Amino acid sequence: MTFAPPAAARVGDLLTSVATPSLTIDLDAFDANLAAMSAFAARHGVALRPHAKAHKSSEIAKRQIDAGAVGVCCQKLSEAYPFAAAGIASIHVSNEFVGADKLAMAVELASHVRLSVCVDALPQVRALGETAARAGVTIDVLPEVDAGQHRCGVTSEDALVELVDGIASQSALRFAGIQAYHGGIQHVAGWAARKHEANRAADIAAGYVRALETRGVRCGIVTGGGTGTVEFDAASGVFTELQPGSYLFMDGDYGGLNWDGELRWRHSLFVLSTIMSATRPGMAVCDVGLKGLAVDSGLPRSVHWVDADDAPALSYVSANDEHGMLQALRDAEGDFAGRVGKRLLLPPGHCDPTVNLYDEFVCHRNGRVADLWPIDARGFSR
Amino acid sequence: MTFAPPAAARVGDLLTSVATPSLTIDLDAFDANLAAMSAFAARHGVALRPHAKAHKSSEIAKRQIDAGAVGVCCQKLSEAYPFAAAGIASIHVSNEFVGADKLAMAVELASHVRLSVCVDALPQVRALGETAARAGVTIDVLPEVDAGQHRCGVTSEDALVELVDGIASQSALRFAGIQAYHGGIQHVAGWAARKHEANRAADIAAGYVRALETRGVRCGIVTGGGTGTVEFDAASGVFTELQPGSYLFMDGDYGGLNWDGELRWRHSLFVLSTIMSATRPGMAVCDVGLKGLAVDSGLPRSVHWVDADDAPALSYVSANDEHGMLQALRDAEGDFAGRVGKRLLLPPGHCDPTVNLYDEFVCHRNGRVADLWPIDARGFSR
Repeated sequence: MTFAPPAAARVGDLLTSVATPSLTIDLDAFDANLAAMSAFAARHGVALRPHAKAHKSSEIAKRQIDAGAVGVCCQKLSEAYPFAAAGIASIHVSNEFVGADKLAMAVELASHVRLSVCVDALPQVRALGETAARAGVTIDVLPEVDAGQHRCGVTSEDALVELVDGIASQSALRFAGIQAYHGGIQHVAGWAARKHEANRAADIAAGYVRALETRGVRCGIVTGGGTGTVEFDAASGVFTELQPGSYLFMDGDYGGLNWDGELRWRHSLFVLSTIMSATRPGMAVCDVGLKGLAVDSGLPRSVHWVDADDAPALSYVSANDEHGMLQALRDAEGDFAGRVGKRLLLPPGHCDPTVNLYDEFVCHRNGRVADLWPIDARGFSR
Repeated sequence: MTFAPPAAARVGDLLTSVATPSLTIDLDAFDANLAAMSAFAARHGVALRPHAKAHKSSEIAKRQIDAGAVGVCCQKLSEAYPFAAAGIASIHVSNEFVGADKLAMAVELASHVRLSVCVDALPQVRALGETAARAGVTIDVLPEVDAGQHRCGVTSEDALVELVDGIASQSALRFAGIQAYHGGIQHVAGWAARKHEANRAADIAAGYVRALETRGVRCGIVTGGGTGTVEFDAASGVFTELQPGSYLFMDGDYGGLNWDGELRWRHSLFVLSTIMSATRPGMAVCDVGLKGLAVDSGLPRSVHWVDADDAPALSYVSANDEHGMLQALRDAEGDFAGRVGKRLLLPPGHCDPTVNLYDEFVCHRNGRVADLWPIDARGFSR
């Protein structure tokens, strides 16, 4: 028996009639962010390879490519499949992987797209090279260097050289450059402090590039950077390619940083929610909790009424699985019983894992649903 | 073009060859938990209506029914669809809802299953009654009372009576009893303190039951309770029906509580992960982060090697989107480079939102995959 919940929305619907919870994109803000990053990269002469782990949607990837991106990054091999299926021709898996099932995915992907991957250990280089040779495909390989995050990546020039030599010894692999990404510094609040950290990471990357150059090895690509550091990364002269992802959406965490440069980002991503109960003074309960909002970087920092502009301001104070607890910001005795059924827009604290909770973006403009974009890589973490 | 990542596992595969990240169930532990709760409810003469928001899987719901459950709870209307489709005949939506799209789902569900729902406001009673009457269906209604959680539910006897009268005035609605659920006290660590809180919630529920009885209204069902308080709830004599969910799996949060009663729960739910990088002494990086583990109730509190029993003990110390940072527990200079590719089992801090990240359970017994159960209500939060 085919028995499934109805669609959340149809194109043309009023935003106020969209089923909740839904993950919505304000297209005006989204388009502005998309255009601003594309123009920025072009202006500074760096390639833009946006990170698709932020949106997990081939519809969005296609728009990024149309706006000038050279391809996309994925964080996992399985994540790359929907993008390859949608015709994205160049995919960089910006992460290490290991094991026969992962190698099988890599060579399958490489038979469909121009694939590049990261490595930081020699056994993985050998395994990848042998698997790719057997499959008759060629894979671009970028050793990752630890740019200060102390997560993945080699920690010495010798280790890097060993990897480069290892890649050179595999006929099915092509050394394409290096990856130097520092995720932690993306979220340093102060502009000057973030600049300092970004420059330090760029200096580390530059040191590795020079070490290879003195050995006669040229890094065609130096890829890295993110939304928080993109202006410094572009100015450093070290990176040839930038990997920002969150700029399209923004979130509570990024929104709380200082932005003193040439770029300003607009919040385009909001969870649409409904007040579903309000039995106590000064409090209301909405229908979005832990299953509709990632809270690793905090609760929504603001609450926006959609269809009750005159209602008292609310604060999102705690999340249960499927409930969000809201408290009146100023009027502790405010009565929200009359607001049950009204809609809210909530900006997630962290966009990437929030997107990973939904199967589609409900895109709106001028108060109406303008498009529905599948989040076709949702859950693809292998 | 059909181009998708390969299946993570097939029945009969070794657990050590399952693709990672995968959400796994240890069937021996799972079966023990399933049997223990069923026997407990039978022994104490209370109905068991497990909460399906914990597992979101009709395969598991069917096993709960087969073991004696009277039906399941769902937290959202959309969540109920896969269970209805799978033939679960009695579903209680243990939550309030509002709006035309939600009412349409309720009457559609009620035409397929015996549906009960919660209310805490008169306008929703009226809207539900009128919609159900138009659709020619009957819906059981249980007003929710605030048992101390201060989330949803009426806060006075007058408000409860008003709802009961409102239900009585709707020919398509049937008053079936009340719901009194207090989620917060499920997680009180101490056994005696948890008992104290549970008894207080039961007393509140009992007060509402008496208030209705003095008006000649009998509560056929008093539903509530959860894994943490189930022994007290059963002993209270107040509840006719219990709604535990997490007992099947356990998680870091529940595992950290004191359990001094007759029931003991085993951890059956673990995320299977692979060490994918280890370039620094005493540290390793696994392939599961925020997109494969809900961290609202903390990081995994333990790390279990699957295929490297002699390896140094690790602690999961931080989560990025797709990376888990692991640190040697005792030997800070331990070298994990030789462990890249080895597997770990990680118990989630909070089972419900972790389950909501995956599309299937990989069920194993004796080191081999024994079954694959779709998480068919994954993401159904409307």
